[in-house]
Amino acid sequence: MRATIDSASQVIESAKSAKRALGALARLSTEEKNLSLLAIAREICEQTEEILAANKKDMDRAAAMVESGEMADSAFRRLKLDGTKIREIVSGIEQVAELEDPVGKITMATELDDGLHLYRVNCPIGVIGVIFESRPDALTQIASLSIKSSNAVLLKGGREAEHSNRALFDAIETAALRTGIPAGALALLESREEVNALLKAEGFVDLIIPRGSNALVRFVQENTHIPVLGHAEGICHIYVDEVADLDKAASIILDAKLQYPAACNSVETVLIHSKVAQSFLPRITRELRQGGVEVRLDEGAISRFEISGCKTATEEDWRTEYCDLILSIKVVEKIEEAIEHINTYGSHHTDAIITENLDCFDRFFAEVDSAGVYLNASTRFADGYRYGFGAEVGISTSKLHPRGPVGLEGLVTYKYKLAGAGHTVSMYAGPKARRRAARDVER
Amino acid sequence: MRATIDSASQVIESAKSAKRALGALARLSTEEKNLSLLAIAREICEQTEEILAANKKDMDRAAAMVESGEMADSAFRRLKLDGTKIREIVSGIEQVAELEDPVGKITMATELDDGLHLYRVNCPIGVIGVIFESRPDALTQIASLSIKSSNAVLLKGGREAEHSNRALFDAIETAALRTGIPAGALALLESREEVNALLKAEGFVDLIIPRGSNALVRFVQENTHIPVLGHAEGICHIYVDEVADLDKAASIILDAKLQYPAACNSVETVLIHSKVAQSFLPRITRELRQGGVEVRLDEGAISRFEISGCKTATEEDWRTEYCDLILSIKVVEKIEEAIEHINTYGSHHTDAIITENLDCFDRFFAEVDSAGVYLNASTRFADGYRYGFGAEVGISTSKLHPRGPVGLEGLVTYKYKLAGAGHTVSMYAGPKARRRAARDVER
Repeated sequence: MRATIDSASQVIESAKSAKRALGALARLSTEEKNLSLLAIAREICEQTEEILAANKKDMDRAAAMVESGEMADSAFRRLKLDGTKIREIVSGIEQVAELEDPVGKITMATELDDGLHLYRVNCPIGVIGVIFESRPDALTQIASLSIKSSNAVLLKGGREAEHSNRALFDAIETAALRTGIPAGALALLESREEVNALLKAEGFVDLIIPRGSNALVRFVQENTHIPVLGHAEGICHIYVDEVADLDKAASIILDAKLQYPAACNSVETVLIHSKVAQSFLPRITRELRQGGVEVRLDEGAISRFEISGCKTATEEDWRTEYCDLILSIKVVEKIEEAIEHINTYGSHHTDAIITENLDCFDRFFAEVDSAGVYLNASTRFADGYRYGFGAEVGISTSKLHPRGPVGLEGLVTYKYKLAGAGHTVSMYAGPKARRRAARDVER
Repeated sequence: MRATIDSASQVIESAKSAKRALGALARLSTEEKNLSLLAIAREICEQTEEILAANKKDMDRAAAMVESGEMADSAFRRLKLDGTKIREIVSGIEQVAELEDPVGKITMATELDDGLHLYRVNCPIGVIGVIFESRPDALTQIASLSIKSSNAVLLKGGREAEHSNRALFDAIETAALRTGIPAGALALLESREEVNALLKAEGFVDLIIPRGSNALVRFVQENTHIPVLGHAEGICHIYVDEVADLDKAASIILDAKLQYPAACNSVETVLIHSKVAQSFLPRITRELRQGGVEVRLDEGAISRFEISGCKTATEEDWRTEYCDLILSIKVVEKIEEAIEHINTYGSHHTDAIITENLDCFDRFFAEVDSAGVYLNASTRFADGYRYGFGAEVGISTSKLHPRGPVGLEGLVTYKYKLAGAGHTVSMYAGPKARRRAARDVER
């Protein structure tokens, strides 16, 4: 069996065999899954030379594309693999083996009556379709998280990384099949039309995860009826409250803008309470500029606080994810105005308040409608690795489960287990209905 | 302020004011919400006369519709309110007041570093649009669950119950506004075009819950990009394993078919292991027929076990939710065949195995892809009330949260709370990166 598929029409076949693999995947013990992950890590390690040779083919083509302007420098850099990167990939897979198995975890347990027990138990989602761009290491992260969560996965990588993806996938598949992962549980989709076929595979694929540019995510969201896990935009805010520690505020803002400006969790708009603007606005503007940041300020604030040399921020700026060394700043009169601004223009990703007043944080936390709401910390912490999840499949801004950085736990749902001894509903209905209050029990 | 809206174009306005109410809703304490629920219960109690008079208007019109064949008897019965029904409604609302507040519940807590704490905290979903048919008591259940979970709700009832809905809503709104529920948090949509307007209100409405016929649910699912909570079909199975206790099997099957055949959790197909079919098939067929059930049997079994007078079950039967006194039966050779049948033809709602072998149940539980998977108990238990949830907004067969009978907990999602003391990501990056293993802490 080879999971490679060359024609778009075969995506459905591939999804069907993934679905057929779910039963065998469900029967694997945690230990079997971990042994398989360790075997995969070892196989990748042993195949380093082949993988780097494949990556070189992709890099050579990509270099020509950068020259002709068809590929951005950043995409080119993400494509590159070397010995260090391979060691990181290997250690990432080993870390997934060490994580707690999320399947089978009981999240609710009740004894409804004598001998009638109800449990809510985590179980795999099913067949997951992943569409990713450039970074070949996304393939190994997603494949290892899928194995650990007993999900089957269809992987569709970008054409720019096709040789690297194929080499990595071959190593993964070899070790997986050898260690008892059922055939069909992992498949690599390689032709270009397969993105569209995947998006239309409703009823065969349970979840789509796009990993790549905002444009890719938006395209996926708009062209499928399958649930999508991800986010198109990261318009994150930091609100400096009237009782903020201004040193903390400055270092957090600089970190959130400068530490990795292209990340989705970098800050795009800073909101400053007017009571601290007089002292803080000139300072933060100066420090940001020293870091090479272009500051755009709302019109009222420019004249009121006599800040010179700033571009005026327009309504368009409040809606923009710069992903660059640009930051917009707005002065607000009260916390309500900050919350309203964030809920109106933000993308429900991650927003922070800088304050020494915990009541203000409580209010900000209750009313800001985002997957992460922070106190005195950088928005850059919104990341599965920083949250201690080991690896992440993406960050979700959806309000139905899962939300925020999504690791292993986000790849499981639950089913209810009811265990009786012949219990019928008739026993509990009608004039002679048996009454017994449910009680929570040990799991 | 009156939340009544007469034109479809006003649905968006109504959703906007619901969204504006979320901040004030989020600030209500559990006690305030409970006091409001008790005031609503009292108000409905006091307005019994007005509500019954309004219901009479609906019943008079409905009686004419039943006569002319425009309305089914069952819909007519569901429409009827009387003193007993009002007392049940009132006690239902009082029960919601007694349930634990799901908002603010912490489901994960980690200390990422000294002074840097990460929590996952349950929070409301936002603006919920509910479309319901016939039963006016659905309105009170949903309104009270929404208040308790701090969600705003737009209620669109069926035209056949318009007077009853208006009278109930007036009582709810009067008491709600008097006890501090913000204006706009509850709205009743009354014109016919508003269903379509609601389904198109993407970005303003966070979740749609259809409560009614399969046709209504399917229409909603196919005509909106807003997440939908619900299920179109309930094709539930009972599998009688080779080591089943056949007395339990018989009484559970009879309960699951006869106790309320029109319910979504009643059984539609019974699968019987061939080793017990010889003795069990004639018995269960006889007992079902005594209960007035038409039995349809797979062709092979009819000849093999010489069962006379049964219709042949076709492929179409396996896909059919009868909601009636009809049951299809298939004889299978092994548990794998039963699991495959359920996953192929079922609707991922609720399926049961009758067995004395716990290993068989473990396998059945792991591999059957349904929201409820039962051992030796009737599928009729799939119900928020029977699960001890107090009240339910519906049953979800979706695999992203929530799943199964959905009560209060299904009406909340979570956001991550990160509380630091000036923490920046720079501290954890680069050659001098600070390293500190995250540890779980007391919530």
